[in-house]
Amino acid sequence: MPLFTVFRSALLLIAFSLPNLVMAKEKADMIVYGDYVLSMEEGAGVLKDGAVAVRDGAIIAIGPRAEINTQYKAASRIFGKNRVLMPGLVNGHTHAAMVLFRGIADDMALIDWLQNYIFPMEGKFVDEDFIRAGAALACWEMIRGGTTTIVDMYFYPQIAAQIYQQCGIRAILGAPMIDYPSPGFSGWDDSFAAGHDFVRDFKDPTGKLVAAFAPHGAYTVSPEHLKEVLDAANDLHAPMMMHVAESPSEMEVMEERYGNSSVRHIAGLGMLDFPLIAAHMVWPDEDEMDMLAMSDVGPIHNPTSNMKTAAGFSPVAQMLSRGINVGLGTDGAASNNDLDMWEEIRLAALLHKGKSGDPTLIPASTALAMATRIGALAIGLGDVTGSLVPDKRADMIQLSLSSPHMAPLYDVESHLVYVAGSRDVVTSIVDGQVLMRDGKVRTLNAAQVTKDAQVQAGKIREALAEN
Amino acid sequence: MPLFTVFRSALLLIAFSLPNLVMAKEKADMIVYGDYVLSMEEGAGVLKDGAVAVRDGAIIAIGPRAEINTQYKAASRIFGKNRVLMPGLVNGHTHAAMVLFRGIADDMALIDWLQNYIFPMEGKFVDEDFIRAGAALACWEMIRGGTTTIVDMYFYPQIAAQIYQQCGIRAILGAPMIDYPSPGFSGWDDSFAAGHDFVRDFKDPTGKLVAAFAPHGAYTVSPEHLKEVLDAANDLHAPMMMHVAESPSEMEVMEERYGNSSVRHIAGLGMLDFPLIAAHMVWPDEDEMDMLAMSDVGPIHNPTSNMKTAAGFSPVAQMLSRGINVGLGTDGAASNNDLDMWEEIRLAALLHKGKSGDPTLIPASTALAMATRIGALAIGLGDVTGSLVPDKRADMIQLSLSSPHMAPLYDVESHLVYVAGSRDVVTSIVDGQVLMRDGKVRTLNAAQVTKDAQVQAGKIREALAEN
Repeated sequence: MPLFTVFRSALLLIAFSLPNLVMAKEKADMIVYGDYVLSMEEGAGVLKDGAVAVRDGAIIAIGPRAEINTQYKAASRIFGKNRVLMPGLVNGHTHAAMVLFRGIADDMALIDWLQNYIFPMEGKFVDEDFIRAGAALACWEMIRGGTTTIVDMYFYPQIAAQIYQQCGIRAILGAPMIDYPSPGFSGWDDSFAAGHDFVRDFKDPTGKLVAAFAPHGAYTVSPEHLKEVLDAANDLHAPMMMHVAESPSEMEVMEERYGNSSVRHIAGLGMLDFPLIAAHMVWPDEDEMDMLAMSDVGPIHNPTSNMKTAAGFSPVAQMLSRGINVGLGTDGAASNNDLDMWEEIRLAALLHKGKSGDPTLIPASTALAMATRIGALAIGLGDVTGSLVPDKRADMIQLSLSSPHMAPLYDVESHLVYVAGSRDVVTSIVDGQVLMRDGKVRTLNAAQVTKDAQVQAGKIREALAEN
Repeated sequence: MPLFTVFRSALLLIAFSLPNLVMAKEKADMIVYGDYVLSMEEGAGVLKDGAVAVRDGAIIAIGPRAEINTQYKAASRIFGKNRVLMPGLVNGHTHAAMVLFRGIADDMALIDWLQNYIFPMEGKFVDEDFIRAGAALACWEMIRGGTTTIVDMYFYPQIAAQIYQQCGIRAILGAPMIDYPSPGFSGWDDSFAAGHDFVRDFKDPTGKLVAAFAPHGAYTVSPEHLKEVLDAANDLHAPMMMHVAESPSEMEVMEERYGNSSVRHIAGLGMLDFPLIAAHMVWPDEDEMDMLAMSDVGPIHNPTSNMKTAAGFSPVAQMLSRGINVGLGTDGAASNNDLDMWEEIRLAALLHKGKSGDPTLIPASTALAMATRIGALAIGLGDVTGSLVPDKRADMIQLSLSSPHMAPLYDVESHLVYVAGSRDVVTSIVDGQVLMRDGKVRTLNAAQVTKDAQVQAGKIREALAEN
């Protein structure tokens, strides 16, 4: 072979190899962009013109757009011009299907509301069809508004699970158990047995759904029964959620019945050594907050519900300053009356400034974190969701900045808390699956969902008229 | 003529006249419908399947759809299937053009915010172009969200007036006057002189715009100067607006300087005998509320701003129970950070329940009235707007009930307060002019408005970076 030919072959070889060497790109399933990307990792701030690469439902990289584009080739892309990309919201406490009861009774005393409206209506109407219709309606609203993870505490969790699988939302499903009769159950024994079976047997191939124990509260479940749940939860390595220290009337009952507060009562039962999701937590005192700070308990703040039922002001800033992971929740729509996490974020940022007289409390970045990273930690999913870092699942949302009500923009976090709302969310992704694109929910049919809700509402409306 | 022919002619005459006799319809310019119509008159409740007829910019009739259709023929109709028809919202206190400052500085002490951000930025940037761009952006957002009347307190009111005329919103334009240097003025003398000239000379052919005196506050305007304004306002029969008893720091200054509270101080000046629009009114005591109840003062509650700046909780329920007309406002977007009256309605309904521990306080119907009928009374426009009754001007809005987040519907008023938001407003009408239809603002170009805002924001952003 003449030298020239060898030389030419070598050159060709180099020439053909070069692009592959320089451009060798890793495969990704999807790249999602944002003019502003908030990973919501502590201190990470705002990344301008960034991107997140996703593979097999997980985040594999986050960085500047040019860098991600150079490193990855993706089967699909969601562009981010005039958009914010951030983690999906974590609704740490809700009763999803209760959305069918939104507005049946408002502006009344808690006891009147519960005993004359909620309990009778639940007894009459909550069945499998109700749960199907209610959970779907709730999911539509939550996906539309950028919620990607929910902690749900409501009846027939095995039915709700079917809806969550269908619509793609991430959920911890709490099986309710209570000492009193409730839909489908005559009291503690059967509600605990059914809940126990559900938690033990529940399997979700996607890994997005987790079954949990949901004893209602320390004032509605006896200490012996709470112990029973705690043992079972420990036994099955299952999470637990409960209403804790929600209202003055709960605190009165606890004082009368046990001579103790709710937090001290459950501490005595060993429940603070368990990663309990503690909804509301309005009335812990200073010492109890110190106890919570050393526990695995994740309090969930529900500001709208706390105001609407006049439960009181949770000492959120004091808990956060102790390093307690306080999440945010909407509660059920019967006491809200919607499932809009942006309203909770905004209210959390506003309320405690007003209450304390200190306008620096719970700044925008903290309120946002409560609905994302800190919220995920509070519900025990800190490794799974709540921030955009490699190896966490790809739960993320985009918000549009294009509407005049979002102009001008000086501070992204401030805008997200004090200006943005559900209407601005345009993309919702859970586990790498696009549940909403360009403001349109893809996994649920809005017309069908509304129609199914109306069927249920028709019956409820009749009963209300007779009430 | 044979009898038969006479008989036949008579029959024909009757036959031809009959439709005209039975169907003789009055002319209307427009009929607007709603599956649910809220006139917001006291005790009127919800009219199902109703309609409002409009002529020459005024309401001429309200009633059941069939009745209005029988009585009136209209050149145009806006249908009401799955819609609520109600009065447009009254934003009783705002600084419209400040929307260009939304988010420049949040979560900080009031004094830091004012002295290091708002005042320097106002000094640097507020000029006629700023007002044009800011007022237009503010109007887009307010019209989009169903606000039809605003009480505006900001610089260059003659420039803002041009924008309000163009976009069709109803406004009371307060000319700001203050003892300190402010945009365009070196202190009291020139700010008062310019404001006085503006109020004296302002003419609006449409009658929708009213010029007013706007002394900033009792702690920023000397008693002598307040007297001067009061005399001038009496002289010119012009309205007056002022910040009153807003914050603990105002109350401290008043106590130190005058040994008195803000309300007692202005009472001593005779200002309670004047129909003063009193923004905020967070700190009246029991006696002062009794004094307000016998005055013509209209307090305006700004719940978001009061929380965000940690001003405190206004005793709204106590004022309302004394028969005081308390309106609602957004304040400027610099301390909100938007101009969304639905958030104020919702927060007014929630906040005072939480603060008092009484969940029956400020029920949905009251919160709605504060933003409509009572709000109009508070600002002295009770004869003009705020409810749907014949002879009032045709200021009204439609909200869509079609989105799944509005389903199911049991109680319209509850839905409007606890669920609805700006995104649900589809029609805005002021003085019979349709400013928004099917969710699209017709009198302002969204792209142009945003672009003009960005020009201003670019300069502000640079200054913030240097700050």
